[in-house]
Amino acid sequence: VKKVVVTGASGFVGRSVVAALRLRGYEVHGVARGPANDVEIDAWHPTDLLDPVATRELMGTIRASHLVHLAWTTAHGRFWSDPDNLAWSRATLALAEAFVDAGGGRAVMSGTCAQYGWDATTTGVFPETGERRPQTLYGISKQSTSDLLQAWSAEVGLSFATGLLFFPYGPYENPDRLVPSVTRSLLGGRRAEVRSGARVADFIYVEDCGAALAALLDSDVAGSVNIGTGQGIPVADVANAIAAALGREDLVQVVAPGTEPPIVADVTRLLGEVGFSARYELARGVRETIEWWRSQELTGSAAGSRPARR
Amino acid sequence: VKKVVVTGASGFVGRSVVAALRLRGYEVHGVARGPANDVEIDAWHPTDLLDPVATRELMGTIRASHLVHLAWTTAHGRFWSDPDNLAWSRATLALAEAFVDAGGGRAVMSGTCAQYGWDATTTGVFPETGERRPQTLYGISKQSTSDLLQAWSAEVGLSFATGLLFFPYGPYENPDRLVPSVTRSLLGGRRAEVRSGARVADFIYVEDCGAALAALLDSDVAGSVNIGTGQGIPVADVANAIAAALGREDLVQVVAPGTEPPIVADVTRLLGEVGFSARYELARGVRETIEWWRSQELTGSAAGSRPARR
Repeated sequence: VKKVVVTGASGFVGRSVVAALRLRGYEVHGVARGPANDVEIDAWHPTDLLDPVATRELMGTIRASHLVHLAWTTAHGRFWSDPDNLAWSRATLALAEAFVDAGGGRAVMSGTCAQYGWDATTTGVFPETGERRPQTLYGISKQSTSDLLQAWSAEVGLSFATGLLFFPYGPYENPDRLVPSVTRSLLGGRRAEVRSGARVADFIYVEDCGAALAALLDSDVAGSVNIGTGQGIPVADVANAIAAALGREDLVQVVAPGTEPPIVADVTRLLGEVGFSARYELARGVRETIEWWRSQELTGSAAGSRPARR
Repeated sequence: VKKVVVTGASGFVGRSVVAALRLRGYEVHGVARGPANDVEIDAWHPTDLLDPVATRELMGTIRASHLVHLAWTTAHGRFWSDPDNLAWSRATLALAEAFVDAGGGRAVMSGTCAQYGWDATTTGVFPETGERRPQTLYGISKQSTSDLLQAWSAEVGLSFATGLLFFPYGPYENPDRLVPSVTRSLLGGRRAEVRSGARVADFIYVEDCGAALAALLDSDVAGSVNIGTGQGIPVADVANAIAAALGREDLVQVVAPGTEPPIVADVTRLLGEVGFSARYELARGVRETIEWWRSQELTGSAAGSRPARR
């Protein structure tokens, strides 16, 4: 049996990764400071990954063949410059060492499209071979950690890939982000003001994102792989899709159209080498997301009260 | 009093850094797994920096204002692809965190000219603004660690610089490297075959290298600073300088002239911003080195038996 450790398994993306890996027959061991009761999983391990001694002990106990590393500092807005990015980088290196020392052979970590340069000189479509010019501590930390692990893996015989996540949306997303905030405003009958409406980005439904990462893990593709749909969608269209699904076009106001270049994944590797393509159209992903938020409001749960983790 | 922690203080470059810092009035705390009895220093701490718990405890005890981090895996030949580069990267991140948490304000780490790309497309003179295309696990590890610390420092208010070392030579260098191996062969009356004789590199006497790093620490210059002389010297000239000093030109044979581009530091920052320039000419540096090796042979010490550390 293929045994996989998933860090950040109770988080926004982690939940979808866990589900996709179980569908593929993996025995899934989730690591999270706060395990989630509503995730179907083989085992939870409430380990603090910032503690390298505990991490090494955990990996020695589980002795997994596979690793998906998603845990990172993800506080909305703040994560771009959060000093804890450094702690997560060193924790990631320690985790990889402990995983390999315990016999692990295949690992995937989540990176970010922010590892590319987003300035006006880009075409807006990013192949993995493109230049990396991350502008933030978050982007630099992910890029540095990934570079290091890639070079190290070649020396120790670890099969290693980084999935560069574009813009996942869906259930359990941080409520302050675009899709949840518009959805919740409209569900509550409140106006939603949407900035940078003309900005084009690669939005991917989180279930597709999780399935893509699981497919990447199950392959032997090494290096960076973009995780997106390959389709650019203007922010305004996302807001309008939510409004249309709820019949509340009257509540959405798009301001500050935005002149930044698009941020869209080149999915040649994901399609051709990993063999994965996204299944959810925007309208369907939005409907699923709305249903989930509606269920949250109905059950009165403190939506998004758990800090989202990639 | 300015209190500085120097890691790798018993190593090849570390010894010169310690001496230069004491001249500048620092209280110097050396960290090394094996302290050196023959180094004048204020205190030795025999801490294993790969142990993050011990590192944190040490930094909390010393509470230094300054840090020079030189320790790294440096086994000759093997360090380029040594898997321990990963361990040193994460140890470096943990050290920086612990240093700042204990009140530290200014840090310098040693990088390497191998962080630049050495292929045929370069001009051979490397300004710090130049592209980084490290080709080895060692170069990638130094580059990634330095990038990360630079971005993190800006967020936590640490003043941080990386000194990119070119080609230091002198006493205590690993005996398998160019200058020691030619010197020892000629001292023993044996022939020395020198490869890549036409290769031009920026050789800097280790005392200058240590003094430059001390000057960099004592400044508030941030970012990358090349540590070299700014002068390219062909490998053949280095060998011939040793032969001339010993009157044994007959024993040196230069083979495989080499067609690689030069590797020379652009020292604009070191001169203009740090205010340092190298004092040793090649002939003098070579003479000092020969004298040291002669004293080693006379006292019968196991020359270079201690693994050199940067």
